Amino acid sequence: MIPMQDAPLSITNVMRHAERYFGEQEIVSITPDNPRHRYTYRDAFKRVRKLANALERLGLQRGDVIGTLAWNDYRHFELYYAISCSGMVCHTINPRLFGEQIEFIINHAEDRWLFVDPDFIPLVEKLAPRLNHLKGVVVLCPEAAMPETTLSNVRCYEALLKAEMDEFSWPDLSETTPSALCYTSGTTGNPKGVLYTHRSTILQCYATTAPNAFGLSSKDVVLPIVPMFHANGWSLVYSCPMNGAKLVLAGNKAGDGAELTDLINVEGVTFTAGVPTVLSALLRHLREHNLTVPSLIRVGVGGAACPKSIYEEFETLHDVRVEQGWGMTELNPIATYNGVVKPALSHLDGSELTTKKLKQGPALFGVDIKIVDDHEREIPWDGKSSGAVKVRGPWVIHQYFRHEQPAVDNTGWFDTGDIGTIDHDGYLQITDRSKDVIKSGGEWISSIELENLAVSHPDVEEAAVIGLPHPKWTERPLLLLVVKDDSQLTPQTMLSWFEDKVAKWWVPSDCVIVDKLPHTATGKLSKKDLRDSFKDFQWRD
Amino acid sequence: MIPMQDAPLSITNVMRHAERYFGEQEIVSITPDNPRHRYTYRDAFKRVRKLANALERLGLQRGDVIGTLAWNDYRHFELYYAISCSGMVCHTINPRLFGEQIEFIINHAEDRWLFVDPDFIPLVEKLAPRLNHLKGVVVLCPEAAMPETTLSNVRCYEALLKAEMDEFSWPDLSETTPSALCYTSGTTGNPKGVLYTHRSTILQCYATTAPNAFGLSSKDVVLPIVPMFHANGWSLVYSCPMNGAKLVLAGNKAGDGAELTDLINVEGVTFTAGVPTVLSALLRHLREHNLTVPSLIRVGVGGAACPKSIYEEFETLHDVRVEQGWGMTELNPIATYNGVVKPALSHLDGSELTTKKLKQGPALFGVDIKIVDDHEREIPWDGKSSGAVKVRGPWVIHQYFRHEQPAVDNTGWFDTGDIGTIDHDGYLQITDRSKDVIKSGGEWISSIELENLAVSHPDVEEAAVIGLPHPKWTERPLLLLVVKDDSQLTPQTMLSWFEDKVAKWWVPSDCVIVDKLPHTATGKLSKKDLRDSFKDFQWRD
Ligand SMILES: Nc1ncnc2c1ncn2[C@@H]1O[C@H](COP(=O)(O)OP(=O)(O)OP(=O)(O)O)[C@@H](O)[C@H]1O
Ligand SMILES: Nc1ncnc2c1ncn2[C@@H]1O[C@H](COP(=O)(O)OP(=O)(O)OP(=O)(O)O)[C@@H](O)[C@H]1O
Ligand SMILES: [Mg+2]
Ligand SMILES: [Mg+2]
Repeated sequence: MIPMQDAPLSITNVMRHAERYFGEQEIVSITPDNPRHRYTYRDAFKRVRKLANALERLGLQRGDVIGTLAWNDYRHFELYYAISCSGMVCHTINPRLFGEQIEFIINHAEDRWLFVDPDFIPLVEKLAPRLNHLKGVVVLCPEAAMPETTLSNVRCYEALLKAEMDEFSWPDLSETTPSALCYTSGTTGNPKGVLYTHRSTILQCYATTAPNAFGLSSKDVVLPIVPMFHANGWSLVYSCPMNGAKLVLAGNKAGDGAELTDLINVEGVTFTAGVPTVLSALLRHLREHNLTVPSLIRVGVGGAACPKSIYEEFETLHDVRVEQGWGMTELNPIATYNGVVKPALSHLDGSELTTKKLKQGPALFGVDIKIVDDHEREIPWDGKSSGAVKVRGPWVIHQYFRHEQPAVDNTGWFDTGDIGTIDHDGYLQITDRSKDVIKSGGEWISSIELENLAVSHPDVEEAAVIGLPHPKWTERPLLLLVVKDDSQLTPQTMLSWFEDKVAKWWVPSDCVIVDKLPHTATGKLSKKDLRDSFKDFQWRD
Repeated sequence: MIPMQDAPLSITNVMRHAERYFGEQEIVSITPDNPRHRYTYRDAFKRVRKLANALERLGLQRGDVIGTLAWNDYRHFELYYAISCSGMVCHTINPRLFGEQIEFIINHAEDRWLFVDPDFIPLVEKLAPRLNHLKGVVVLCPEAAMPETTLSNVRCYEALLKAEMDEFSWPDLSETTPSALCYTSGTTGNPKGVLYTHRSTILQCYATTAPNAFGLSSKDVVLPIVPMFHANGWSLVYSCPMNGAKLVLAGNKAGDGAELTDLINVEGVTFTAGVPTVLSALLRHLREHNLTVPSLIRVGVGGAACPKSIYEEFETLHDVRVEQGWGMTELNPIATYNGVVKPALSHLDGSELTTKKLKQGPALFGVDIKIVDDHEREIPWDGKSSGAVKVRGPWVIHQYFRHEQPAVDNTGWFDTGDIGTIDHDGYLQITDRSKDVIKSGGEWISSIELENLAVSHPDVEEAAVIGLPHPKWTERPLLLLVVKDDSQLTPQTMLSWFEDKVAKWWVPSDCVIVDKLPHTATGKLSKKDLRDSFKDFQWRD
């Protein structure tokens, strides 16, 4: 006997729900052909049905993988739904990756068709001869804006849609049907594909909707600064329609402080989310032009640790609550969220509160988190002892796409590659990444902690700490600095500056001032490149 | 290949999550032996592990059904978790049912053991000889408070727990494992069992946690006035620990305005939820003693339509937001919630807003709702055309416990037995119940609408409208009234009062003033009893 209905969780339901209950809510986009495109969820899903018909007409079938190379806008939104709700896989490609990585990814995913913003046509032209499974390319623009191209099978998105009816009968899908595919950027190795399912997506959305997390409702106006090609834009592209929030999509202007400010103030944005780098750019613009963002209530920060300066500037100058999330592509992507401050912590203020809020926070309901030592023994939640962070739950990866072996250990836990502590309140703090960890004389040194300290020096623009082989200590930390324009800072002053701040053996063994530091496609420091560049570095005695 | 982890949704995770992240949050209870018992989630789940050991020691096994006859308090809370997380079924029995119904239910469910508040020992003594599957009874009290009883195998709850260790290894359960069993009260027939699963429960909790619904966070202090034996206390007993909200449980004082006021004000309750009757009692107490409830922000009303008077008194006198939910035992139990007012409706105020807020609201994300005519054709969402309300989704019943046939139609929809309209915004309004509907000359008359009109008359205390056979019109409405103490209202004045308010043929054909109206165990008007009592009523010509 089946007591309760065996009804699947599905992205199709998000679409239906938004159309029925929040049909009039808007999606506002910046696109290459329109600085402010504006329509409603009702309009959007009508076009999604046309697009689903167009996909069928292109000969695409259930299970096929379709690639997108696109910024955040309404056409990309339409692709998300038409592809996934047709039972196909929406493969969002990060256009900031190196050409060879993109080629590898498209071939590995076996993308049948690519849907591409006009900006990326030159890139696709270069790669096309080596894309083995590709049948054709659709350009995301109206007919008038179609670029000239050497590509062979090219279609215009708006022309495709115009030819179709706005009715479509969505297939019934089991909840474990794959919906989307994202590759890790490869900071820590070759890109690996993470295949999300309807179930993992909906559960991630339910969990992040909670007031302890994003707290999304139909009163919110949400600007996901995080790209839609980065772990499904932290699922906001699903959770906003699910809860009837208005969506604001910044196109290729997500790094542009002036455009972001304008969007926030004109559209009345209440919640935005992105990596620290873009939030810095926004803050810099506000600072330099003496602007405010009165509608903005909360900012979700993730993808990298939130610097204290971002936290403090938003909170004190703009009265915006800064909430940090931690996750990764493999976690669909959020696992912890430092949102609502529970009553037991309401006595915290000033620097104590800041310290707590700069941790990555407690787990979302639905995932299990633990920290373990080298022997897989659980480490106590004392806020001091650190270990490898492992995660388990329905929106955690089990197996990379087309990999033979599961990505989990034999008790089902996924090793995140992050190192952290968990305190008595269950707040995770990421102290390092296992690949960045420095082992000096058998003891760990946190490169992240040293970097954070370094950037808190007023003359330092950016800092990286890497571990390099050392004849005596196995490994020792080397500090690399970009200093501010008019700074006179010397390596020696910088190193002595650490002395009363960390244990003596944590002070980096040397410091080099450089012009700039290498970054990955997602804007993170590329430790791999740094270790390569400095592999012949000689320690002074 | 399994891309994302196949990790089950489970109530066990709620327990783990609350213990880890909100261990210090309190559960405050009124029990027969302690007017204010107070401990934390950490304490609670420690005792839950002892209880799980005790269940094993009683010889209980996975799949066994265990009955509870208990008010809302911490011991009942412990039973919820120990039983369900052990893979057994927690069968919460409504003690307000008639003795024969309780006997039927306990036998039908095959309850192995009963866990019973001392108040209910006399009831169990009376039924015991006919309870075929019962092995014994545990009394929910400390040893000193054990009542004398003629029952044979009787244990003391606190003595059982004292004997056990506070460690327990919870079994891994698939998410479709049954967790709890609730019988409908039988207003509309014999009691039928609805068997909830871990999955249906967790999904209901995720959906009701959203800001558009209860909006629960770790800052909330929640007083579920709704009994824990009524559809799992609208799942608040799960969703509060899931989100770290403090729980306040009123024991057998949930109908006592003075106790409720005291609990709200002393514990700082921010959210409460219950049926209109108890909320009336609370309001009356506040009014008569000139009291306020400043901590209270929102009230969830459900189980019956929320009268305008309750809505207005909370909103205007107490600045409390009144939010209506609609559901039923078969829906685990909530399907719509009239919470956050979306921007498109923010222009509403005054009576327009009240009218909108008194509807049952839009669907929670996760369930599908439709209204159909007698030929199963969908009825438009125009806010006027009414039809049978059908529901589909993962927390909707598929099959009653131990019934042969599914409870759904052959396209998988469950007919709720309610009649309603849905407007352009997707707001459901329950206008009637199919068993209460009056068909006069082939047209439907809404008994609920007539009842609402009747109680809006200043002299009317309570009103019921039933349909009785009529030689000419097949059926005609009869109005039954309880009038206020000093009222001079006559049936004739009352009927003429309707004349400019409804279509002529809707005006009840007669009116009878009675001393009181019969109610069911859940406090609803018992139409079945009324139809019985008035079956020989003679219409005047
Ligand atoms: N709030 C945060 N604080 C600190 N680190 C974070 C935070 N959020 C994410 N990270 C880091 O980012 C990683 C996830 O990156 P993501 O999977 O989104 O991109 P990626 O393309 O796989 O790049 P990477 O190689 O850095 O993992 C995490 O493993 C963690 O190291
Ligand atoms: N907000 C509401 N407005 C109007 N009616 C409601 C509301 N909530 C619940 N109801 C009514 O209560 C019914 C559900 O009752 P429930 O299942 O909780 O108790 P029951 O014991 O089965 O009693 P019943 O015989 O009344 O169904 C619904 O079918 C509906 O008629
Ligand atoms: Mg990664
Ligand atoms: Mg019912």
